[in-house]
Amino acid sequence: MPSQRAALYRVSASGPADVSGVEALFENGLDPKTVVAVLGKTEGNGCVNDFTRGYATSTFETLFARHGVTGASIVMSGGTEGALSPHWTIFCRDTVEANPERSLAIGVSRTPDMEPEKLGRRGQIELVADGVREAMADAGIGNADDVHFVQIKCPLLTLSRVAETEARGETTVTRDTLKSMGFSRGASALGVAVALGEIDLEEIADKDICNRLDFYSGRASTSAGVELADHEIIVLGMSDSWSGPLAIDHAVMKDAIDTASVRTAQQRLAEGKLVAVLAKAEPDPTGKVRGRRHTMLDDSDISATRHARAFVGGVLAGLFGMTDIYVSGGAEHQGPPGGGPVAIIVERATNP
Amino acid sequence: MPSQRAALYRVSASGPADVSGVEALFENGLDPKTVVAVLGKTEGNGCVNDFTRGYATSTFETLFARHGVTGASIVMSGGTEGALSPHWTIFCRDTVEANPERSLAIGVSRTPDMEPEKLGRRGQIELVADGVREAMADAGIGNADDVHFVQIKCPLLTLSRVAETEARGETTVTRDTLKSMGFSRGASALGVAVALGEIDLEEIADKDICNRLDFYSGRASTSAGVELADHEIIVLGMSDSWSGPLAIDHAVMKDAIDTASVRTAQQRLAEGKLVAVLAKAEPDPTGKVRGRRHTMLDDSDISATRHARAFVGGVLAGLFGMTDIYVSGGAEHQGPPGGGPVAIIVERATNP
Amino acid sequence: MPSQRAALYRVSASGPADVSGVEALFENGLDPKTVVAVLGKTEGNGCVNDFTRGYATSTFETLFARHGVTGASIVMSGGTEGALSPHWTIFCRDTVEANPERSLAIGVSRTPDMEPEKLGRRGQIELVADGVREAMADAGIGNADDVHFVQIKCPLLTLSRVAETEARGETTVTRDTLKSMGFSRGASALGVAVALGEIDLEEIADKDICNRLDFYSGRASTSAGVELADHEIIVLGMSDSWSGPLAIDHAVMKDAIDTASVRTAQQRLAEGKLVAVLAKAEPDPTGKVRGRRHTMLDDSDISATRHARAFVGGVLAGLFGMTDIYVSGGAEHQGPPGGGPVAIIVERATNP
Amino acid sequence: MPSQRAALYRVSASGPADVSGVEALFENGLDPKTVVAVLGKTEGNGCVNDFTRGYATSTFETLFARHGVTGASIVMSGGTEGALSPHWTIFCRDTVEANPERSLAIGVSRTPDMEPEKLGRRGQIELVADGVREAMADAGIGNADDVHFVQIKCPLLTLSRVAETEARGETTVTRDTLKSMGFSRGASALGVAVALGEIDLEEIADKDICNRLDFYSGRASTSAGVELADHEIIVLGMSDSWSGPLAIDHAVMKDAIDTASVRTAQQRLAEGKLVAVLAKAEPDPTGKVRGRRHTMLDDSDISATRHARAFVGGVLAGLFGMTDIYVSGGAEHQGPPGGGPVAIIVERATNP
Repeated sequence: MPSQRAALYRVSASGPADVSGVEALFENGLDPKTVVAVLGKTEGNGCVNDFTRGYATSTFETLFARHGVTGASIVMSGGTEGALSPHWTIFCRDTVEANPERSLAIGVSRTPDMEPEKLGRRGQIELVADGVREAMADAGIGNADDVHFVQIKCPLLTLSRVAETEARGETTVTRDTLKSMGFSRGASALGVAVALGEIDLEEIADKDICNRLDFYSGRASTSAGVELADHEIIVLGMSDSWSGPLAIDHAVMKDAIDTASVRTAQQRLAEGKLVAVLAKAEPDPTGKVRGRRHTMLDDSDISATRHARAFVGGVLAGLFGMTDIYVSGGAEHQGPPGGGPVAIIVERATNP
Repeated sequence: MPSQRAALYRVSASGPADVSGVEALFENGLDPKTVVAVLGKTEGNGCVNDFTRGYATSTFETLFARHGVTGASIVMSGGTEGALSPHWTIFCRDTVEANPERSLAIGVSRTPDMEPEKLGRRGQIELVADGVREAMADAGIGNADDVHFVQIKCPLLTLSRVAETEARGETTVTRDTLKSMGFSRGASALGVAVALGEIDLEEIADKDICNRLDFYSGRASTSAGVELADHEIIVLGMSDSWSGPLAIDHAVMKDAIDTASVRTAQQRLAEGKLVAVLAKAEPDPTGKVRGRRHTMLDDSDISATRHARAFVGGVLAGLFGMTDIYVSGGAEHQGPPGGGPVAIIVERATNP
Repeated sequence: MPSQRAALYRVSASGPADVSGVEALFENGLDPKTVVAVLGKTEGNGCVNDFTRGYATSTFETLFARHGVTGASIVMSGGTEGALSPHWTIFCRDTVEANPERSLAIGVSRTPDMEPEKLGRRGQIELVADGVREAMADAGIGNADDVHFVQIKCPLLTLSRVAETEARGETTVTRDTLKSMGFSRGASALGVAVALGEIDLEEIADKDICNRLDFYSGRASTSAGVELADHEIIVLGMSDSWSGPLAIDHAVMKDAIDTASVRTAQQRLAEGKLVAVLAKAEPDPTGKVRGRRHTMLDDSDISATRHARAFVGGVLAGLFGMTDIYVSGGAEHQGPPGGGPVAIIVERATNP
Repeated sequence: MPSQRAALYRVSASGPADVSGVEALFENGLDPKTVVAVLGKTEGNGCVNDFTRGYATSTFETLFARHGVTGASIVMSGGTEGALSPHWTIFCRDTVEANPERSLAIGVSRTPDMEPEKLGRRGQIELVADGVREAMADAGIGNADDVHFVQIKCPLLTLSRVAETEARGETTVTRDTLKSMGFSRGASALGVAVALGEIDLEEIADKDICNRLDFYSGRASTSAGVELADHEIIVLGMSDSWSGPLAIDHAVMKDAIDTASVRTAQQRLAEGKLVAVLAKAEPDPTGKVRGRRHTMLDDSDISATRHARAFVGGVLAGLFGMTDIYVSGGAEHQGPPGGGPVAIIVERATNP
């Protein structure tokens, strides 16, 4: 009886243009057609002038064109501060002849193109919520509780999109293109929260977006990119109709040093080999962690997101004993203020 | 029967000139005469142009002059990257009427002024080793195994010291004043190693200093300052002739994510309230942590020591659940390459 | 016949706590009582966590207390990027027996304490305009055209000031303390513009402050400090009732490379020795200089104000052939967007 | 009568992968076959982890492959600090039917592959000197005084090159790959000095390379790249056998603010439109400019080369009234310590 099966590969990169490890996978038999997504950590600053993301994306596009990979999401997150290690995580799925048994499932979807006036408003939340539901269906996940991580690549406003919108007599949430990235990430995360039943759409007003920090998804990870007008959505969860040794669970860190929550999630998973850790991190907006002042938000030499990735990277690397962890910044509505979601994927020692 | 007793105070600072928390201690009854040392973490970059150290030192000098504190070591370490929290740790000792029982002991000493030609050479190692033995005696510690942390403030070369030395027909180990800081820290750490029996002085040649990375002390923490020509030495350990609830142990982290060693040390200590964590951190000089590349040494935007403090700060803060930890960079011969010593001080729930 | 006479001293600093050059002036006969202001360039980042300003200020306070200097303004501006050189400019004035002849005049004033609800609003503009007129009177300058530079130290909002204001049923322009600095600098600069007749107060609405970039003073230089609730105002100009060799003029740079305007101002001044150059610099908010893109506003590694000081510092240092120039950032309403005021003080070869 | 003719195009870039302006040139008739070199300024940090250079190079390689450009040198220099503007300068040469008249000439050459043991030693100097002479011949320049700028892309040591060399029983000048870049740039610059008669080869010993700062070329600009084992050499000068409106001259700045030398060179050139300015900049190694301390070498937040480019960029942009200037750092033996060569290319209003 056939079932779907997920496979993940964590591949080291010696620089943003080094895809030799992925090429080696292809040469050693990985079928490029099974690739559905790449999540990369590159060594730029993860901020405005981080060109390592574009460089890596362009390198992967060339590689994928050469190997016939089509439709795969390419998500690049800049910033490997501290001892975090640049790497690519390749997500694959294939049909195998094996009985289904509760396992890691990967679903993908793309929303329709979004009118720029919806960005950062309830319209985007609805659009993304629909897309997440579609990706859940694609993954064969019926119960929202079985979803443990939703990665979304969302659009941003450009000057020409703002102009085009205003020419139609509409307004955009902001004319500031940088700020539009935060709005898009935030509304996308709230879209996840709505789809997963974490918040009711009716409770959210436009003005809450990027304001009401107590509204968040414990399973969303979103990033904005200039190259798309729709949303690329990847859902990771557990499904009874898949098979294989992989399993996923997640924690929601309450603050930057909340290892207890992560350890609990880790213990819920069966024994096995760690395959991937995916997390969001941000400086606590109160300026304190457990009552003690931090200086991230006042440091004009190093941006606060870099501090946060380095530090939370250390927290998680110390806990998991590995440094090629996906820690991403910019966590609007992704976990509680100062905390964030952490997904853990393991290869179970014995199949369930 | 009288015994010596140590007391430690961890005091938050809202900036490098904020000593209001220490003033409050004095107002609330702490006898300024019992203060023997301050270890501070300030929020500068911890590198060449970090003026927060001098600013804090100058502020403490004024405070201490006003309160009649004399002879106390003031050691300021810059860099509270990530969520590390700026704070002062005040070390006090006093005589109390209580039976001695194995407890935290604090010993201090100062070496004679050092001729600049000895700096970074075996002469400095010998001088420091003698000083450490003297501080051990001052602490009432007879067995080197009972020493868990040795903090040293050592001199550096200035242009005028180099000139004066050369005028006498001698040479200095370097004419580069910045490099002299590393040599002084390194030779001081090796002095600790010799005094504690970790390395035999005969094994060390001048050329090994700052070169033979396998030569190190697992208990040394050294920093260089321009304001002294001798060495200020603080020894922390366990002594049978002291009393009180405080106890200390230490670990040597083998690499930046070696939490196992730290957890083992923590378990050796009796249950109790965490009072202080003192650690050294550095980027692994091989460019890798457990086989995975890190980018700290190639980052021309953020100095590697800042990355290392942020990351190891996260590792330790996650482990201990607190962020006002003393994590200091510049770890020549202080722990193995890429790792470092970690001292843990607790207030035991029940006295021994 | 007695007249007032100004004297200026440009003193090198080897660090933010080095006032030895100023002490030497006192030892060599400068009367401390004649000191009315210090303008310092310190080597911090000039941004939020620049502690070199506070360190320098505290060092000068101690020095001034020791020498009986009272009431002198201490204005510290962080940031000596590029080859700019850390230095102090000491402004003195004294009465001499000499016929008055058109010369540099220095006037000072302090406004009453300002209610926090006025900050960043028209109330502050009026208050500052009054203060500037008072300082002009103090300088013996009747004609606003004779004013060439107005340095103002203005207050900012703190959390407690905001709370106290709201407790009285009033509101502040912002609750964001960092933003309040910009509002205070901007409104103060507009106060100068009003006092000097550059803009009519009636034309300015509250909402124009920090918004209408075409509203600016060509002679204002303002900085916000936490330590005051009023405004310290220093007016520099030409007065017929003063005497001595010093003279001042100013230019308004239209953009970051507008050397033509500066050269014209320089030529208006009599031949002589350059004594001081005082300037404001900022990144062009359009993202372009003369049609060519600059990258200052997109650089997440170096703050835009540091870029601007380094670059405009180079433009002016190349023009004047000296590097101990006062170039300050944060130029809201101080010169046109992307440009800024430049004051030039010379010691005339022959008295007028 | 046919002659050679040079053409230069200065093209703005909106990012390291934006070659749309160059494509537009091709579409508007520029023959790709005439392109001999690209000199680019990209907006990275110009230091170790500047991936904008590789990204731009890779983008140009794809563009050139598509348009049949072969053999063109691609030299990317990172760092557009201050208001410097990212741009490409395209160097072209073609044969035209026009009488020769003293004009800008461009010559190119490549040396044979260099054994790694020669790098940073006299062997490299000789090899480069031969290559420069060959490029002069290619440019039709017989007299070394007619050469005004020599751009060289030189190799560096990699770990595998060091290993291969040592396996043959030879040694390399260093095992430190970063340091090898400085040695290669320095020896290449001295190769230019030898070819142009600025220094006699016999005077230079191996140990002088990167040590004797008084040995320098006033016309060399060198950069090291990992992608080549030989040297790409571009000579710019005046030749009687070329034709066209372009002309070149150069200055050697004695320090960072030496505008006098540049102005003199500018005046030697005929009136005309400025086409390109090419310069090298570095922080003065004495820590002072004209006796005043600078802080570039002590700033652990911003690398000294970034400071130097921003500042000297300002000096030159102020002088020339334009911001898309090629200012490059890392100036070993390229101009005097703290100063550097500046080449100026103009399009003469009337042909000679």
